[in-house]
Amino acid sequence: MPITRAEAFAPASMGNVGIGFDILGLAYQEPGDRVIAEYWDQPGIQIAKIEGDGGRLPLTASQNTAGVAAQSVLSRVGADCGISLTIYKGLSLESGMGSSAASAVAAAMAVNALLGSPLTKRDLLPACLDGEALVSGRHADNVAPCLLGGIVLVTGVDADHILTLPYPAQLRLALVTPEVAVPTAQARAVLPPTIPLKAMVSQTMHVARMIDALYRGDLEAIAMAMESDQVIEPARAHLMPYLQEVRSAAKAAGALGVVISGAGPTLCAVCDSDTSAERVAFVMGSVYQAAGMGATVRATQICDQGARVI
Amino acid sequence: MPITRAEAFAPASMGNVGIGFDILGLAYQEPGDRVIAEYWDQPGIQIAKIEGDGGRLPLTASQNTAGVAAQSVLSRVGADCGISLTIYKGLSLESGMGSSAASAVAAAMAVNALLGSPLTKRDLLPACLDGEALVSGRHADNVAPCLLGGIVLVTGVDADHILTLPYPAQLRLALVTPEVAVPTAQARAVLPPTIPLKAMVSQTMHVARMIDALYRGDLEAIAMAMESDQVIEPARAHLMPYLQEVRSAAKAAGALGVVISGAGPTLCAVCDSDTSAERVAFVMGSVYQAAGMGATVRATQICDQGARVI
Repeated sequence: MPITRAEAFAPASMGNVGIGFDILGLAYQEPGDRVIAEYWDQPGIQIAKIEGDGGRLPLTASQNTAGVAAQSVLSRVGADCGISLTIYKGLSLESGMGSSAASAVAAAMAVNALLGSPLTKRDLLPACLDGEALVSGRHADNVAPCLLGGIVLVTGVDADHILTLPYPAQLRLALVTPEVAVPTAQARAVLPPTIPLKAMVSQTMHVARMIDALYRGDLEAIAMAMESDQVIEPARAHLMPYLQEVRSAAKAAGALGVVISGAGPTLCAVCDSDTSAERVAFVMGSVYQAAGMGATVRATQICDQGARVI
Repeated sequence: MPITRAEAFAPASMGNVGIGFDILGLAYQEPGDRVIAEYWDQPGIQIAKIEGDGGRLPLTASQNTAGVAAQSVLSRVGADCGISLTIYKGLSLESGMGSSAASAVAAAMAVNALLGSPLTKRDLLPACLDGEALVSGRHADNVAPCLLGGIVLVTGVDADHILTLPYPAQLRLALVTPEVAVPTAQARAVLPPTIPLKAMVSQTMHVARMIDALYRGDLEAIAMAMESDQVIEPARAHLMPYLQEVRSAAKAAGALGVVISGAGPTLCAVCDSDTSAERVAFVMGSVYQAAGMGATVRATQICDQGARVI
């Protein structure tokens, strides 16, 4: 008997990873979004319910990243059935943690599973990108790590152009998300249209150091390279309240480096143990607390598995 | 009895390696410069003779990269003796093969050997940079590979900031140097002072691919990444006669990629065997010959040893 219901989880992710603007991304082990796909009697995709978004996301499938990704899966496999989605948002919107990508990926995974998995995970990338494109352009720096897991170098928009990079096993991440919205569009608008050639040399040098350090498993060098962005972070820093204070406090507590997660406002600290990541997360949250701002903290690590059917 | 004469060889080198403007460099196994250092009775450095430069290089030590590097070694070890240098130029000037770096490095190595090797090879880097700075600024992208060998990522001007990268053993290089001068100063002057942010993303992406491909030993991906520079080569291409013709001919003959060596006019093709490199070198030379221009060709490989006392 064919299944009538499938559920998938897709993790949060960090685009950019500091120095790698638009080219690097990694999947966080948690949090993430869940999507349930079920057959229903009208052709196409409908969104039955969204929980956890405070009513902010559209229920119209064609206006929702999950709906678009789900429809794209249907179209790509030539299925003319009707599927209903229930979306559980574990991720805050516009927090710099790949919320729109996670919903798109979880929906694509769930629909594919419901259909009997006609597509491989890597084959699902274009459908997920169709969803992501609805809100932030056809970028794979969140979608690719969210779907495939790990830390990836994005050199194009199909799966052959996603290169999974190695990283040292002791790498841990501490996250803090202050209660301030940084719309991705605004975070893009503040970027300089041109940069000095010298800045390009600096950026390429630090990206090269980052890849080299990942292959050598040198966590300190990874953190140092991640943090060496001299183009994107300076342009966006004013949108991230207390960035320098959080960085100082995190380092005093043992963090090896702190970068903006995606377009922010979540900040991500690189640590070398669970204990350190927990301490650093607490300390980063305390900075916002002392300033009278709410903030959510979390100690996590890179998720190698990426999205999965659950 | 202390030695009274020491001789050193320093190889040609390629700055930039295509995509890695000002951050990557590699040493060619040949050709190179030789310098002989001998004691003489006046304190300081004198240049007794230069062969192979067609009389173009200054004999005044303070105006010659070899003289300056040699004097810097003397100063750094606190030696007040007199040393006379004889320089055999195996490298053409302004050919994009690190001619000034090779003379500086060979002189520093020879003087250090004459003094009983008080400095390690890595310790000699600052003295070599002092020499190179005389003609092309304090850049290590030729000096570092010339001195230390291999393919290196240059992240600063001391030896701790020179990272040696792995590369696949079958990597071979075919070189062609047409008889046209491209002064480094002119090649720098044509570069754009600023670049679009999108170009930065492209450059960082291809540099990341290059480092990734070097670690994975994927020669085709290395060659493709090397060639993907969309900032420096387009600005300089008009200074390199027949660049596109040479590239097409080289690829038709089996080359995996062709880049400008340093600031040119030497062009360097990446090949996967000695036979291929020899064929490609011949074909590249034929392009200039057909156009009525003289050109020197050579099939070589990366030199892991770098400069050495001989």
